[in-house]
Amino acid sequence: MAGQDGVVFIGTKSPMSYVLAVVTQFHGGLKQVQIKARGKAISRAVDVAEIVRNRFMADVKISEIKTGTETIKGEKGEDINVSSIEITLSK
Amino acid sequence: MAGQDGVVFIGTKSPMSYVLAVVTQFHGGLKQVQIKARGKAISRAVDVAEIVRNRFMADVKISEIKTGTETIKGEKGEDINVSSIEITLSK
Repeated sequence: MAGQDGVVFIGTKSPMSYVLAVVTQFHGGLKQVQIKARGKAISRAVDVAEIVRNRFMADVKISEIKTGTETIKGEKGEDINVSSIEITLSK
Repeated sequence: MAGQDGVVFIGTKSPMSYVLAVVTQFHGGLKQVQIKARGKAISRAVDVAEIVRNRFMADVKISEIKTGTETIKGEKGEDINVSSIEITLSK
């Protein structure tokens, strides 16, 4: 769920799992946590950011949102473009 | 699809329908087009923004991305929170 310090990768679990991961990282002393997602998980990434700041940590703000396009390999080795998002939450 | 000038609301159609709507608005002379989406359509909104600038209009940039939470009424009249996104594309 959290591959490296200060980064939470959003997958297919419920939003609350990732909310917990983000809150835990802030409580561990970090001033900044990045939420990263690709494809359909992008909606969930926005949910996680919104839930963290509206329900758990009023002192946390979204300081940056970046989008991008990544090329991944499909089942037959073909290139597939997927959108990505990086939401930076800061105290 | 495009409720007002300069705004494209993302629904459940294919991304390309919305890409066309955005490109059409720019070609009509607008310098700025907003892409708005809620809930699961947020991922599609990012796809649309990425496709517009990577494949159709290299001179268009994402100038702002805002997220929010909106409260809508569920089937039984209960309040449901949904995340929203507003992506502003500018020439």
